[in-house]
Formats: sequence, structure tokens, C-alpha cells
Amino acid sequence: MAAHTLDIRIYYEDTDAGGVVYHASYLRFAERARTEFLRELGYQNSALEKEHGILFVVRHIDIEYVRPAFLDDYLTVKTQTETVKNSSFIMKQTFFRDKDLIADMRVSLVCVAREPFRAVRLPDEIKRKFEGQPGRNKI
Amino acid sequence: MAAHTLDIRIYYEDTDAGGVVYHASYLRFAERARTEFLRELGYQNSALEKEHGILFVVRHIDIEYVRPAFLDDYLTVKTQTETVKNSSFIMKQTFFRDKDLIADMRVSLVCVAREPFRAVRLPDEIKRKFEGQPGRNKI
Amino acid sequence: MAAHTLDIRIYYEDTDAGGVVYHASYLRFAERARTEFLRELGYQNSALEKEHGILFVVRHIDIEYVRPAFLDDYLTVKTQTETVKNSSFIMKQTFFRDKDLIADMRVSLVCVAREPFRAVRLPDEIKRKFEGQPGRNKI
Amino acid sequence: MAAHTLDIRIYYEDTDAGGVVYHASYLRFAERARTEFLRELGYQNSALEKEHGILFVVRHIDIEYVRPAFLDDYLTVKTQTETVKNSSFIMKQTFFRDKDLIADMRVSLVCVAREPFRAVRLPDEIKRKFEGQPGRNKI
Repeated sequence: MAAHTLDIRIYYEDTDAGGVVYHASYLRFAERARTEFLRELGYQNSALEKEHGILFVVRHIDIEYVRPAFLDDYLTVKTQTETVKNSSFIMKQTFFRDKDLIADMRVSLVCVAREPFRAVRLPDEIKRKFEGQPGRNKI
Repeated sequence: MAAHTLDIRIYYEDTDAGGVVYHASYLRFAERARTEFLRELGYQNSALEKEHGILFVVRHIDIEYVRPAFLDDYLTVKTQTETVKNSSFIMKQTFFRDKDLIADMRVSLVCVAREPFRAVRLPDEIKRKFEGQPGRNKI
Repeated sequence: MAAHTLDIRIYYEDTDAGGVVYHASYLRFAERARTEFLRELGYQNSALEKEHGILFVVRHIDIEYVRPAFLDDYLTVKTQTETVKNSSFIMKQTFFRDKDLIADMRVSLVCVAREPFRAVRLPDEIKRKFEGQPGRNKI
Repeated sequence: MAAHTLDIRIYYEDTDAGGVVYHASYLRFAERARTEFLRELGYQNSALEKEHGILFVVRHIDIEYVRPAFLDDYLTVKTQTETVKNSSFIMKQTFFRDKDLIADMRVSLVCVAREPFRAVRLPDEIKRKFEGQPGRNKI
């Protein structure tokens, strides 16, 4: 299965008055990581939508917050494809500060077409790349 | 000129690790207030876009942060139409905690049509209502 | 067990370029609902921290996104205490647009003291109120 | 005067249902840029607060939105110190997509001490660096 790593710096915008990273911020970080993962595989959200009429919609998230993170921390998000089905896939995403696990997340996404808004088959080329097979960079 | 008041509660999502309301949050609050002002006048952003193909785009913001606000504060946003032109308008928005002025903002918005993305005339009915004249609730 | 309901209006700030409510926004809405639930029971986050040195930290979230929500939608968040333990509790939170279920969430929170940052017993009075027993409004 | 450049990728979190970058997002980007500028000069917000008891508070923002930006755009934020006074400074920040000016912003910040929350002198070393003079990396 394919994998990807992204570094994230923590700014004031990501924190709250509790002095820690606001819990919803991790979902934003995770989405940046999935987007860069996709970009590395040769795809871009805006192009998938304009050219192929599909978008990836979050269906389920399960996140465990293990340790707090703080202003100016430098986190690493590891993203790994875990399951790839016909019209959906599951990614495991973990957040680390050096060796310390900060959060552990599993997200299910569905490949959706607009008008009408419904699940459709994941393009074969993307499916192959998520499975870690060499792709040919077109869908 | 027409005017409107909205109360806003401060939650963790609005604050930062400095222990105060994050400075960009005021722009979100101001937009909620303008949206509710518009709704009170009989309009809704989603309907303006779907039915009339127009949206109001922020062109300029000038904001003075006078005092910090904190978690659990209850702020009042006062919104007032200041200038109404053919395709744009200026609103003055002030944030108070009881009698204390927290922030003072002036925002210019342009009435824009999509495809192509260009400034268009503000519908007469909305213009009249912004000017505080009795409207007839259709555009 | 105690329960609570909060209405949430969807603004531009809550949406994304996919035309729907951004998936992380639901975590912000859920936290507003828990905060208002707590306020109704007689507690305020800022006071709990200043006067009692405790805060409620999110430990785990499980959220299923059932249907998309859109700009100008008016959602209802239902919050219900599900399990109350010595230093933690689980709340079930569901999002509806009229009769339609939009999202279904379960969140675990831990009662934490600062310096050092560690789990502590939930004050008895709060525990009783979460369990739906009549409280006496002091902790 | 000292200057700095930061590249910003646009993700779903930064956009709204109007299909463009949400106007308040630019304030978040600008703050990331100022933070990285400061880091390049040898300072970190969290350390300034913990070790020196000071933080930089936004006092005034003036922002002109020139062109819309979109999902997956890659913007460049140019930050330049414009005026440095005893306890405050003004930075000019411009946003570009390639050669196109997207937004133009001027932000005033005040150097503030906590408890009591009041303006204090900007440390000489930071002042010199903001003015583009060679510093010695300690305050």
C-alpha cells in the first residue's frame, strides 16, 4: 500500500485558549496530508472535480488524541492507504512530534460524482496507485 | 441607513494559545452578522446565488482591535450600512462586550456575478433596504 | 442521563469549495453544543479552569457523516450523556436538518488538571448532573 | 528594512462555498508568514512568551482583496517591515499567484506584556533586526 509523510508547523490559528492545539485542527492537518499524498501520486482535487466530475468525500473519522501538541511544535503526519474498495478507501493517519505519538486517526472516504450527488467507482488508475502499484499518471 | 445587532458567544474554536480571541475570528463574526442582517431584510446568500446569480464579495476590510476578548465572553456586533453605491456598499461593524468597545471595523463589499466573475449592479430592492427605505421583499 | 439541544446556522465560514459544510466544522459545532449544555447545567469552561483548575480534554472522536449540509442550512445538534466514569465521560451528539440525520458522533472527554497535565476525578456535582440527577449547582 | 517570503498552498479548509478562498483565511496566512519571518530572525512566539513574557498583538489590519484565489492555488506571501517604533511595528504583506496580486495588507502589531496586559518596549535586538540591521540573535 502507498504511504506519504507531511510536516506541519503549529501556528496560533491552530491553538485554543486551553494552550494546546484545538482538537478539530488535526482534521485540517490530515486533509492537507491526504491532498499532498494525492498530489504526489499525480492528482489534484480541483482537477479531479473539473475534469472528471468526482470528489472524495469524508464518510467516517475515528481519532484518538494521545498527547497534546503546542504552539510552534513541528508535527509529522504519516498517511497510509489501508483498504481500497470499488468506490471508497480507508486511510490511516498518525501524528508524531519526534518519536511521540500525538494522535492516531482512521478516515474513510467515498468517491462521489455531483449532480446527482452519489458514490461512483474510484478511477482504476487512482485505485492502483493507492494500492502501491506503479501507475501511469492518467485516469 | 439600515442597522442590525447580533450576539456572539466566544467558544474555544474562536480563541488561541495567547488566551484571547484569535484576530481573524472577528472577520467570521462580522460575516455572520452581515448574513443575519441580510436575512432580516429578506435575503439569503444561497438563494441570491442560485436564483439571481449574484454574490457579495469582500473587497476591503479595515479593522482596529481595541481590547482583547476572552473565552465565554458574550459580544454584540452592531452592523450599519454606511455607503450604498451602484454595485458596492460599505458597512460599519462594531464589537462590544457590554459597554466596552472591543473592535471597530469597516468592510466594503461588491455585488458580483459569476461566469464571468465581474461586478454588477446591486438589485434595486436590496439597495433601497440597505438605505433604510421600506422595501417590498422581492428583487 | 442529561440531554441538550442547540440550533446552528451554517455560514460561509463553515463551508468549503466542494459546496458543502467542511467536515471539520462539525467538531466545532459539537463543541459549542457541549459548552452550552454545560452552561445550562451551571458551569462555564473559563470558570472551571480559573476557579477549579480543571478542563475537559477531548480524548476520542468517532463521527459518521451521513448526508452533506449546505450554506444557510439550519441544523440541530442533540447532545446526550452516554457514560459517566470517575474522570471521563462519553457524549453522543447527532446533527439533524429537520428529520434528516446529517452526522452522528460519539466523543470521549477526560477531566484534566494543569501543571502537571493529568487526568483527575470529575467533580461529583458535575458527575451527578451528567447522570441526569438533580444537582445543587456547586462543585 | 527586513523582508521575507513564504509559499502557501490552498486546501479545502481555506475555501468556502463561493468557490474561492474565504476572506478571513488571508489573515491566517499572513500570521504564518510573520511567524516564519520572526523564526528566520531567530525568535519563536512560544519562547518570547515563556522566556521574555511578551507577545505581539495585532492592533490594526487594512486589507484590500484584489483578485480571488482558488483551491490548489499556490500563493506567495511577501512580508516587509515598514515602520518600527518603540513598542509597535507595521508590516506590509502582499499575496501573489505568480505575477498576479491577490491581496495587499498592512498590519500593525504591538509588543505586549501579560499581567497586566499592557504595551511594552520592543526588545532592542528585535527592533534592530526588523530594521534590517545585523542582529546578534539574543534579546
